[in-house]
Amino acid sequence: MDQGSSRRITIAEIAARAGVSIPTVSRVLKGRPDVAPATRARIERLLDESGYMRSNASRASRKNASGMIDLIVHELENPAVVEIVRGVETGIEGTGLSLALSFTHDDPQEEKRLLDKIYDRGTNGVIFVRAQDQPSLRHALRGHGIPFVIYNYSGELAPDIPSVGVTNWAGARMAVEYLLSLGHRRIAMISGPTSLRCSLDRIAGYRTALEDAGIPIDSDLIRPGDFRLQSGYTQTCALLALPDPPTAIFAGNDLQAMGVYKALYLRNIHVPERMSVIGFDNIPFAGVVSPGLTTIHQPLFDIGWMATTMLLRLMAGETLDSPRVELATKLITRESCAPPPPHPSRMDQDGRQYRAQ
Amino acid sequence: MDQGSSRRITIAEIAARAGVSIPTVSRVLKGRPDVAPATRARIERLLDESGYMRSNASRASRKNASGMIDLIVHELENPAVVEIVRGVETGIEGTGLSLALSFTHDDPQEEKRLLDKIYDRGTNGVIFVRAQDQPSLRHALRGHGIPFVIYNYSGELAPDIPSVGVTNWAGARMAVEYLLSLGHRRIAMISGPTSLRCSLDRIAGYRTALEDAGIPIDSDLIRPGDFRLQSGYTQTCALLALPDPPTAIFAGNDLQAMGVYKALYLRNIHVPERMSVIGFDNIPFAGVVSPGLTTIHQPLFDIGWMATTMLLRLMAGETLDSPRVELATKLITRESCAPPPPHPSRMDQDGRQYRAQ
Repeated sequence: MDQGSSRRITIAEIAARAGVSIPTVSRVLKGRPDVAPATRARIERLLDESGYMRSNASRASRKNASGMIDLIVHELENPAVVEIVRGVETGIEGTGLSLALSFTHDDPQEEKRLLDKIYDRGTNGVIFVRAQDQPSLRHALRGHGIPFVIYNYSGELAPDIPSVGVTNWAGARMAVEYLLSLGHRRIAMISGPTSLRCSLDRIAGYRTALEDAGIPIDSDLIRPGDFRLQSGYTQTCALLALPDPPTAIFAGNDLQAMGVYKALYLRNIHVPERMSVIGFDNIPFAGVVSPGLTTIHQPLFDIGWMATTMLLRLMAGETLDSPRVELATKLITRESCAPPPPHPSRMDQDGRQYRAQ
Repeated sequence: MDQGSSRRITIAEIAARAGVSIPTVSRVLKGRPDVAPATRARIERLLDESGYMRSNASRASRKNASGMIDLIVHELENPAVVEIVRGVETGIEGTGLSLALSFTHDDPQEEKRLLDKIYDRGTNGVIFVRAQDQPSLRHALRGHGIPFVIYNYSGELAPDIPSVGVTNWAGARMAVEYLLSLGHRRIAMISGPTSLRCSLDRIAGYRTALEDAGIPIDSDLIRPGDFRLQSGYTQTCALLALPDPPTAIFAGNDLQAMGVYKALYLRNIHVPERMSVIGFDNIPFAGVVSPGLTTIHQPLFDIGWMATTMLLRLMAGETLDSPRVELATKLITRESCAPPPPHPSRMDQDGRQYRAQ
C-alpha cells in the first residue's frame, strides 16, 4: 500500500509542477484532444518521470461499470455550486459511473431522507457539497460501507473525514490586505452563514488582516449574511446608514457581492470610485458584471474534480494520504476596487476612521 | 383511458385557474408547508371541484421506488439550464426516484455513449434538455421501451415525440413589438444557433414584428450567435461598427445580452439612454445586473417540472393528450429599454433608418 500511497497525490503534484489545472492533467490521462500540444508534452513527460500509475482510472472504471456516485448539494441557486457539479462530472468522465444529483435545500431531515433513498437504491460513493449533520452522516455511511467526501460542512469537521476545501482564511486575508494596500482603512465585511466553517474562516482572515495593519475591529462593520444575494443588498443598505460608512465592502461570496452592487447602483454610488467591492468565489458572473468584480478565486471546478478523485480512490479500496485536502485561493483583480475617495471622506489623525463631511 | 386522459392536464389548468405556478399546485398536492394558506385553500377547492385524481404521484412512487430518471443536458454553463434542472428535481420530489445528470457537451457522439451507458445501467425514463440526434434517439429509446421527453432539439421535431417548449415565436415578437412601441425602428437581433428550432422561431418572431410594423428587414441587423456570452459581445461590436448602428438590440438569450452589456459598458454607451437591450429567458441574473435586464420570461423552472410530469405519466403507462406542450412566454420590463435617443440619431422621412449625425 505504501507504494500506491506515494502515487496518490501525483495528479495534483503534476498539475502544480506543470503549472496547469488538475483537470488538464486528467484530460491528458484520458487521452482527450482538448489540450495544447506543448502542454500535453510537458504533462506526459512529468507523468513518465514520476512513474504515475495510469491504471487507476481504468481499474475504477472496470470495477464501477454501471455504478453510481451521488452528489448531494443544498441547492443550485449559487453558481459556485454549479461549478463544483461541473468538476464532479468531469471527474467521473470515462469511469463508466453515472452521477446522481440530489438537493437537501439545507434541511437536515431532507439529508436524512436522501441517504435512506440512496441506501435502498445502492451507490458506489457520495460527495456532499454542504453536509448538515456530520456525526449522523459518518455513522450511517460508514455503517453501510459507503465511501464519501465532504466539501463544505456545518460546524467542525472530524479530522478523519475525507474532505476537500480551500484556503478560506488566507483568501479572506488576501482580500482585505489588497484593500488596505489601496489605502482603505474602513473596510466592512458581509459574512456568510456562521454555521459554516468556511464563513468563520473568512471572518477570521478579515480580522487578521486588519489586526496586522493595526486597525481595531469595528463590530458595526461585520455584518451577517447567508451567502444569498439579498443579504448582500440588505447589509449594504445597513452599512450605508452608519454614521461612518465604510469605503470598501468585502462580501463573503460573489452572490452577496452582486447584492452589494445592486444596492450601490440604486443609490447612484459608483463602483469603484466611491465604494470598492471585493467578493469571494470567482463565479463566472464575476467577470460578466460591470464593472468586473475583483474577487478571491476558489478553484470551484477543481474542488469538484478533486473530491471525485478522492472518492474514486476510496471506492478502489485505497487509503488517502491525507483525508483533508486544501486547494489554494488567489486574488483576481478586475475593476471593482480603487483607492478610497479623497472626498467626501477624510481620515482621522490616527488613521482609524473616515467621516462624511 | 379517456377518463384518465381528461385528468391529465389538470395540474396546469388548475395552476392557470388559481393564478399560481405549476410547482405551487404540486406543493399543495404533496402536502408541503411552503404555500400561503389562502393560496392553498384556493388550490384545494379547485382540485376538489375538478375531481383531480391525487393518486398519480403516489402510484408512480410505489412503482418507481429506487428507480432512476436520467436528465441529459448539453452543459450547465447557461443558468437557464440550471433552472430547468431545478424544475426537474422538484418534479421528482416525493416520487422515490433519483435523478441522474449527464452532459453531452453538444457532442452527438457523447449523446450516443451516454445512452449506451444508460441502457446498461437501466433507467425509468429520460429527459433531454437539448437533443442532438433525434431519429437515433427515438429509435434507440423506443427500441428499449424507455419513455422520454425532449425540451430543446436540433432541427424539426417529429410530431409524435413527447416534448415541452415555450412560445418562442410569440415571445420574440413581443420583445420587438415592445421596442417598436418605445419608438425604435432600427432594431438588431443577435440570434441563437440556427441549428436549434427555438432560435429559428425567435428570428421568425422578430421578422414578423418588424414586417407588421412596415419596417423592411435589414440583414445587417440580424447577427448569428451561439447562446453564449461571447457571441453577444462580438456581435455588438460588429453592430456598433455599422454605418447605421441600431438603437436597440434584441439578444437571442440573456447570456448573450450579458455580452451585449459588456461591450456597451466598455465603450461607455449607456443602457438604456443610448442603447436599449432586451433578452430572452429571464435567468436569475437578469434581475441582478444593473440596469436590470428587460427580457422575455420563459418559465424555465416550470419547463423542467412539466417535462418531469409528462415523463412520470409515460412511465405509468399513460398516454399524453398531446405529445407537445407549449408554455407561455411573457415580457418582463426592467430598466434596459427606453425610447431611442433623439440625438445623435435622426429618422429618415420614411421612418426606416437612423443615421449618426
